[in-house]
Amino acid sequence: MGKPQRHVFVCSQQRPPGHPRGSCAAKGASPLLQAFWGEPQKRQAYDRVAVTYSGCLGPCDNGPNVLVYPEGVLYSGVTTADVAEIFDSHLEGGQPVERLRAEAGVW
Amino acid sequence: MGKPQRHVFVCSQQRPPGHPRGSCAAKGASPLLQAFWGEPQKRQAYDRVAVTYSGCLGPCDNGPNVLVYPEGVLYSGVTTADVAEIFDSHLEGGQPVERLRAEAGVW
Repeated sequence: MGKPQRHVFVCSQQRPPGHPRGSCAAKGASPLLQAFWGEPQKRQAYDRVAVTYSGCLGPCDNGPNVLVYPEGVLYSGVTTADVAEIFDSHLEGGQPVERLRAEAGVW
Repeated sequence: MGKPQRHVFVCSQQRPPGHPRGSCAAKGASPLLQAFWGEPQKRQAYDRVAVTYSGCLGPCDNGPNVLVYPEGVLYSGVTTADVAEIFDSHLEGGQPVERLRAEAGVW
């Protein structure tokens, strides 16, 4: 891939069952990542939006967490139902989705 | 972690031995990630620089690849010997390390 306009990192951190921190994987990160990966294909947006999985982004309690650069906007508690809106509003429209942003103080 | 000034993504993609694309893991990404993770501790730079592993960043042939945001600078062929310079020059000094940048056209 070439340098994208926006780059989405979907936390896919796994931890063992019962781990006190939990993990984004345990909160649904895998289907979420698949949903994010499917969207540039539908939109033919490969040259504009990159999607990459990542390790831990910090606020595990509120996962799954999704981080968008270059703005450095962290979303928490993202579900597959939010993916199209994040693409429409932020990744292609430039307007972050305020209702999904991580709380101030966390990020 | 809170929002960092700069965020380093170290590609840690694995692929089976003999896979035609190779992988950053096969080219030394694991010790490289450890070296990146050690540096904020030495420098007490946790509030300024975040280090996260990631999936494939694209140009596997030239790995290990390391991507720095918010600038969106991609480095290729990075070794543990380069880590201190990347911190000094770019992550803390704001000047990308030109000799390590991915070729134009790749990124």
